[in-house]
Amino acid sequence: MTAALPDNHVPSPFRTREQRSAERAEKREAVLRAAVRMFNARGFHATSLDDVAASLGISKPTIYHYLGNKEQVLIECVTRGLELLSVAAEEVRAAPGDGLTRLRAFLHRYARLMMDDYCRCVVRTGDESLSPEGAALFRARKRGIDQSLRALIADGVADGSIAPVDVRMAAFMLAGALNWPGRWHDPAGPMSPEAIADALVDLLIRGLAPRA
Amino acid sequence: MTAALPDNHVPSPFRTREQRSAERAEKREAVLRAAVRMFNARGFHATSLDDVAASLGISKPTIYHYLGNKEQVLIECVTRGLELLSVAAEEVRAAPGDGLTRLRAFLHRYARLMMDDYCRCVVRTGDESLSPEGAALFRARKRGIDQSLRALIADGVADGSIAPVDVRMAAFMLAGALNWPGRWHDPAGPMSPEAIADALVDLLIRGLAPRA
Repeated sequence: MTAALPDNHVPSPFRTREQRSAERAEKREAVLRAAVRMFNARGFHATSLDDVAASLGISKPTIYHYLGNKEQVLIECVTRGLELLSVAAEEVRAAPGDGLTRLRAFLHRYARLMMDDYCRCVVRTGDESLSPEGAALFRARKRGIDQSLRALIADGVADGSIAPVDVRMAAFMLAGALNWPGRWHDPAGPMSPEAIADALVDLLIRGLAPRA
Repeated sequence: MTAALPDNHVPSPFRTREQRSAERAEKREAVLRAAVRMFNARGFHATSLDDVAASLGISKPTIYHYLGNKEQVLIECVTRGLELLSVAAEEVRAAPGDGLTRLRAFLHRYARLMMDDYCRCVVRTGDESLSPEGAALFRARKRGIDQSLRALIADGVADGSIAPVDVRMAAFMLAGALNWPGRWHDPAGPMSPEAIADALVDLLIRGLAPRA
């Protein structure tokens, strides 16, 4: 139920604090999305914040205002991507099911995420694009995701739902196979991200040799 | 049998044409190897030919003399890597055995090559580091290797030694899994490249789900 307004109410042209805050968040989001897409398409080194700004009809100082300098923008992009992967890993580890079921669920989400702008940026960003502090943070976050992947594989080996593999090698192999769409996937291509994720995960779990 | 030399023979301090040519090739090789290692360690953009030259105790114009400018050096590095992969593909395609046997042989060589300096450089180089002409050539050569991989998979599906997979997806998945060592492999690590290649290829062929 809305509070009754007096008959002589004049609608305010001034935005409320909440509206201003939401608008600010939306603008920040648009700047970040434009930046990550340009980093992914052209490479970090070849992208200038001037071009990102021009694509939104704004000026470079506006980007500085919302996000900071080019390295800070990149760090925000890869942090987003790593956060999406971490959340997926945590949710899957807490889910019911045997090791293989949970690993399959994680791999599927991982593959889907690798076709998202922010996760693609994680795969496309080399340590050398970051300052030493930025690179150390980046490596630590990636290590966390690798640890989650290894834990899921180890659970499956322990309960017999996964073959007795070398857990470290299997984690590298899975990450490699699923990171690769971050480089080759063309969003305009004929297969949906969902279908690509299905096909890749199935190949990884079943292997290439025929099963009886 | 060596031709007898007259008693008054004075050994010549002048090098023969063959010696000069071999020395030139050896120097060119050393410059290229120093450059590819620095590109791989620091990234192409962060590497200067001055640093490459300094690591060999020579000057930048000497590098220009042997190999050309920085992009030309990079193109030579990735061309070497792609050539190694092409040769492996051609040899394996001509070898006897069913599709899976030949695919396994190719994957093993591919994995080993991905731990070589020049092939690592292929994986680490984005199109955006090259001029439009260089990038077009680079993509065409990579496409050739992808075609060879797809042909090997298709042969195996046709003769029943490989499960009825989506050939294109399988090629992407295999390349992704095996390109990844080009990014994470540490030559000083505990496992030999041979053991890593064995483990990765076995995982890809057998899959993670246990086999009866």
